[in-house]
Amino acid sequence: MFITFEGIEGSGKTTQINFLKDFFKEKSIKAVFTKEPGSSKIGGEIRNILLNKNLDLSPYAELFLIFADRSQHVEEIIKPNLSADFLVISDRYIDSTFAYQGEGRSIGHEEISKIIKKMNLPLPDKTFLLDLPVSEGLKRAKKRAEFDRFESEEIAFHEKVRNSYLKIYEENKNRIIKIDAMKSPNKIFDEIEKNLEIE
Amino acid sequence: MFITFEGIEGSGKTTQINFLKDFFKEKSIKAVFTKEPGSSKIGGEIRNILLNKNLDLSPYAELFLIFADRSQHVEEIIKPNLSADFLVISDRYIDSTFAYQGEGRSIGHEEISKIIKKMNLPLPDKTFLLDLPVSEGLKRAKKRAEFDRFESEEIAFHEKVRNSYLKIYEENKNRIIKIDAMKSPNKIFDEIEKNLEIE
Repeated sequence: MFITFEGIEGSGKTTQINFLKDFFKEKSIKAVFTKEPGSSKIGGEIRNILLNKNLDLSPYAELFLIFADRSQHVEEIIKPNLSADFLVISDRYIDSTFAYQGEGRSIGHEEISKIIKKMNLPLPDKTFLLDLPVSEGLKRAKKRAEFDRFESEEIAFHEKVRNSYLKIYEENKNRIIKIDAMKSPNKIFDEIEKNLEIE
Repeated sequence: MFITFEGIEGSGKTTQINFLKDFFKEKSIKAVFTKEPGSSKIGGEIRNILLNKNLDLSPYAELFLIFADRSQHVEEIIKPNLSADFLVISDRYIDSTFAYQGEGRSIGHEEISKIIKKMNLPLPDKTFLLDLPVSEGLKRAKKRAEFDRFESEEIAFHEKVRNSYLKIYEENKNRIIKIDAMKSPNKIFDEIEKNLEIE
């Protein structure tokens, strides 16, 4: 099974993924936790470019860096682990590209969809979308650390990303579980656990 | 005017580009010389990943790194200089992607063509294709320095790249000037000079 976590900046993905790590450990379920961008051998360098807020990246340079990272991530980590029947959990994946580059950078949904089809990427079985207002997310992200290139974007960008996520959810309700990320971390994890259907 | 140089490893592009630099200097013609991959602010890091022969890059990771580099290269260097009416000369550009990734890595011509169209890239006015047998090119490249990730590929890969270049030439004779790179450097440059149509 392939599970992804999605959401805007400050939506609490990391907290929930850490809860999930503990949960699987307790149940002795072998699971591989990974993230985008930055998990493959070339991912670290690509992540540094993507998050560097002193760089004025073109929308396409950003898109293609993310796709380069994803291709390598899928070949090195996701595919081999899914083939070995491990549970794979990724912090961000395809939906992030639709939301951030497709909508946020105005590249368009269809264009990205075509590239993804051609690349023959494995699709997630389940996706947890942590949704909350942009103002609240950014407030939380600000507490955490200095803003990176994405976090530094203006409010309108983050609103586009959030709205895109909500649209993707409407079109993929069989796959995506939307959770109100204004709830307490424990309540959010209760919902995740319930929806995991792992006893 | 936008001019590109193309050819397999060891085809002598650098030598000819250096002749061209001297030629323009002599004529007091302002020209901007650039290359792919590696000319933009993010290009150096991307080039290092692409040429590192210890990395097992997926074909798509390679393709998208090249496109990320190109997008940034076009926005930072090629478009502003063409807009300022400078002559721009690039060592490798679009045709390299068709030959190396499209054919060499078997991603396909059509797929690359679609991405290029969508990116709205400026097309070269003139391209010099330096053509020579793979065995001779690799022999020359070997003398120069230790082989990089592309140069280290097997002969069959380089044959595919050369054949792809020749096919692109057949379909673009109005743009591409093919030159027999087995000729002496001076004779090759005579042909380039003649075809530049700069008096």
